[in-house]
Amino acid sequence: MEKIISLCKRRGFIFQGSEIYGGLTGTWDYGPYGIELKNNIKNLWWRMFVQGRDDMVGLDAAILMNPRAWEASGHVSGFSDPLVDCKKCGTRQRADVLMEDKKSLFQEKVNEYMNEDVTYSRSKKTAFIESSGIPYERTDVARKAITEYIGPLAQRFLNEHINCPACNSRAWGEPHKFNMMFKTSIGAIDDGSSISYLRPETAGGIFVNFKNVVDSVHPKMPFGIGQIGKAFRNEIAPRDFIFRVRELEQMEIEYFVKPSDWEGSFEEWRQEVHHFIDAVGIDEKAVHELEVAPEDRAHYSKRTIDFEFDFPFGRKELFGLAYRTDFDLSAHAGASGVKLEMQGEEGEKPYTPHVIEPSFGVDRTVLAVLASVYTEDELGGEPRTYLKFNKAVAPIKAAVFPLLKNKPELVAKAREVYTMLKQEVPQIMWDDNGNIGKRYRRQDEIGTPVCITIDFDTLGETADFKDTVTVRDRDTGEQQRVKIEDLTNIIN
Amino acid sequence: MEKIISLCKRRGFIFQGSEIYGGLTGTWDYGPYGIELKNNIKNLWWRMFVQGRDDMVGLDAAILMNPRAWEASGHVSGFSDPLVDCKKCGTRQRADVLMEDKKSLFQEKVNEYMNEDVTYSRSKKTAFIESSGIPYERTDVARKAITEYIGPLAQRFLNEHINCPACNSRAWGEPHKFNMMFKTSIGAIDDGSSISYLRPETAGGIFVNFKNVVDSVHPKMPFGIGQIGKAFRNEIAPRDFIFRVRELEQMEIEYFVKPSDWEGSFEEWRQEVHHFIDAVGIDEKAVHELEVAPEDRAHYSKRTIDFEFDFPFGRKELFGLAYRTDFDLSAHAGASGVKLEMQGEEGEKPYTPHVIEPSFGVDRTVLAVLASVYTEDELGGEPRTYLKFNKAVAPIKAAVFPLLKNKPELVAKAREVYTMLKQEVPQIMWDDNGNIGKRYRRQDEIGTPVCITIDFDTLGETADFKDTVTVRDRDTGEQQRVKIEDLTNIIN
Repeated sequence: MEKIISLCKRRGFIFQGSEIYGGLTGTWDYGPYGIELKNNIKNLWWRMFVQGRDDMVGLDAAILMNPRAWEASGHVSGFSDPLVDCKKCGTRQRADVLMEDKKSLFQEKVNEYMNEDVTYSRSKKTAFIESSGIPYERTDVARKAITEYIGPLAQRFLNEHINCPACNSRAWGEPHKFNMMFKTSIGAIDDGSSISYLRPETAGGIFVNFKNVVDSVHPKMPFGIGQIGKAFRNEIAPRDFIFRVRELEQMEIEYFVKPSDWEGSFEEWRQEVHHFIDAVGIDEKAVHELEVAPEDRAHYSKRTIDFEFDFPFGRKELFGLAYRTDFDLSAHAGASGVKLEMQGEEGEKPYTPHVIEPSFGVDRTVLAVLASVYTEDELGGEPRTYLKFNKAVAPIKAAVFPLLKNKPELVAKAREVYTMLKQEVPQIMWDDNGNIGKRYRRQDEIGTPVCITIDFDTLGETADFKDTVTVRDRDTGEQQRVKIEDLTNIIN
Repeated sequence: MEKIISLCKRRGFIFQGSEIYGGLTGTWDYGPYGIELKNNIKNLWWRMFVQGRDDMVGLDAAILMNPRAWEASGHVSGFSDPLVDCKKCGTRQRADVLMEDKKSLFQEKVNEYMNEDVTYSRSKKTAFIESSGIPYERTDVARKAITEYIGPLAQRFLNEHINCPACNSRAWGEPHKFNMMFKTSIGAIDDGSSISYLRPETAGGIFVNFKNVVDSVHPKMPFGIGQIGKAFRNEIAPRDFIFRVRELEQMEIEYFVKPSDWEGSFEEWRQEVHHFIDAVGIDEKAVHELEVAPEDRAHYSKRTIDFEFDFPFGRKELFGLAYRTDFDLSAHAGASGVKLEMQGEEGEKPYTPHVIEPSFGVDRTVLAVLASVYTEDELGGEPRTYLKFNKAVAPIKAAVFPLLKNKPELVAKAREVYTMLKQEVPQIMWDDNGNIGKRYRRQDEIGTPVCITIDFDTLGETADFKDTVTVRDRDTGEQQRVKIEDLTNIIN
């Protein structure tokens, strides 16, 4: 992980946010190659799932929404982390993170405690889980359970088993809920009447626009709405580079189906997630489907799959796929008083569609791609590092070099080749800095699939090679001579 | 304007934000065609100014930044609107908006008042203007002058000349500053120690990353950094559709030059702004360059041009171009303690580059494009409305129709043509809804340049026309028969 982070900074992929001011924890800035990589991933997703399917349309809803939307969705009451204060040193920490290594012991102990104390019955636990809000991550039900249902039990467990990482004492208070939505105040009057939130997920904007989309583009069932955009979560402990951050970007789909049709669509989207994993260049062998057990799912979900990835810091959630029934549309219809329904076919009544939600984090995708393509090998007896991006997402598709930068005729010919290619493929780079070896090393580190060198043979020094260039393959380091007129085909 | 707003909603371009909840003033959501249009505009800009130039690189900095960045830039102290309360009815309004129609009278009266009252001398006014923060818009110096320097004079003027629009009385308090940055609190401790802001402009993220970009991609002078992203302003009176909003998107460039070279670069970017205006399909005749007068510029700016556009609601700022000297890099270097310099060429000392800033609002561009292409005419004796988008930004490049939807052989052939084109051009649409006339009308309203109809002749009913289709031009309504194999060329 350290190597990836270091390469990302050194080569202009990803920088710490506000770095010159000491940073702002949980924010990251994408540099020149990082933004091209991120845009390639977003464009691939959009082409595949929005433009590429007749049953999908796009949307871009605002980040700031009427706060009633987040009341209806359950986020105002339920989108919380369990925080706990150390009464000795005063630091505030996430109870679930403190317990992470002792999860199974905690489960065991909670059962023990509950048997000791009749006020905590199993049925009460079940009742809590069923009444809880939406699950934005699988672990949330467990997290909320810690504070809402078994707060005193969690406190007891912490005081029996967990030392404060800051002062090493065991003087824990009772875990309490901390809402993770960033709050802000809209308008000139700062009296609390105008509170709004930075959206914690993009999905809300889709549900709220369901009727506008249906009324304007008249989709036929089943159909979906896709959206890419920023979301914000006030994480107490951002960590693992761009994995758990405060400002993130999501690619989400809400796919609306007839209630009886959900299983087929769920399976279709399960396959589609794999197609994306393949197309974007994530190592399939490191991806694992986790069927979320009924007791871990939200009460309204009949099926949820987590697509986990073997990140360098462990196996963690990468993508999600959930069948959410009509929970969202019904909640927003109820709270807004606006009907969110589809007309039934002839003779049928209007009905509320059910929804399949495939959900992708942009930053997590970037990280999974980086982890999949980061490679160290030996080339020509030298150790080297390179990024084995597939061509679709590589930030630079090809680099063009004049062999020597101080020979005007080489530079002129190389500019000609560069200009020709650039018209076809915008992500082409010019590089005349340092010797050829250094340039190859630099291009390997940013993952450029091919390097094109214009040398004296290109100019016709040897008649046979006139108007040919060397094309060097990133992965093998092998070079071949090709005609300039064939370059566009080779790159495409 | 009403017609554009209505078409945008009806045809799925732009919806009111959070509409089912009664909206959230100053926010707008882009629907299926709106997001394609907006993406086309952003991609065009990115290709033209970032990928298309060897002296430019891209960046994507976080929206949440360390608050010290906004202290250094002057936004914490200076990014304010002058608000005034009516002491009779209690409504809060923008003093500068109230005075808008009486600006010259206000100037006159202020001079009169100042002569009456020696505590307000001209030199003090000048001192204020020179010490004020950055000008995010040309009128800001005037706005800040109202509150910071001549608040009591503005109060006097209001009470002598302006009635409250709400209760018609003249009982104005003294105008006071209201910071337009949205505040939020980061982390678990809500005691004010962790205040941050939603960025009010994207430029700050570029300056803060200057050193990271220089150290990672080693650009040669002059060079620029471009960025597209959201920014937020707590406007008291959002208005004019997507023109003055609370959540906006910007495309900004900071172009770094040697101090002595600014004039040539300024002129080059002035031309580039016009190239963009032309490429994106904004009516050049409605664009006017305004040389901002020295007294209206920020103290550190030696030249600023506003590119104004004749919007349906009046001539207003569309794009800006400012020479900002080394104000920003020096301010951030001073506040952060990190040197933000370039190495001089051999023998020269390191120096702080000066900056030219071309700044484009995405939403304003969308609106100017819509205003430029909205057209009403008569076709075949019928009045019609259409959007004369150029092909680069049209959300749908071509629509493919089977003449009749209940003839399987027509539908099959049309799908074949559609699938072939879609592989080349993702923004191709299938439409078999209603009769051909209705489909043309719908495609005209979303601005699709060509409609392709597969009819019985295509299937070979008349031997001469086998494998030909009709291609109908949006602007003239004229149809011609072309071979299927020529379609890709026609669309490209």
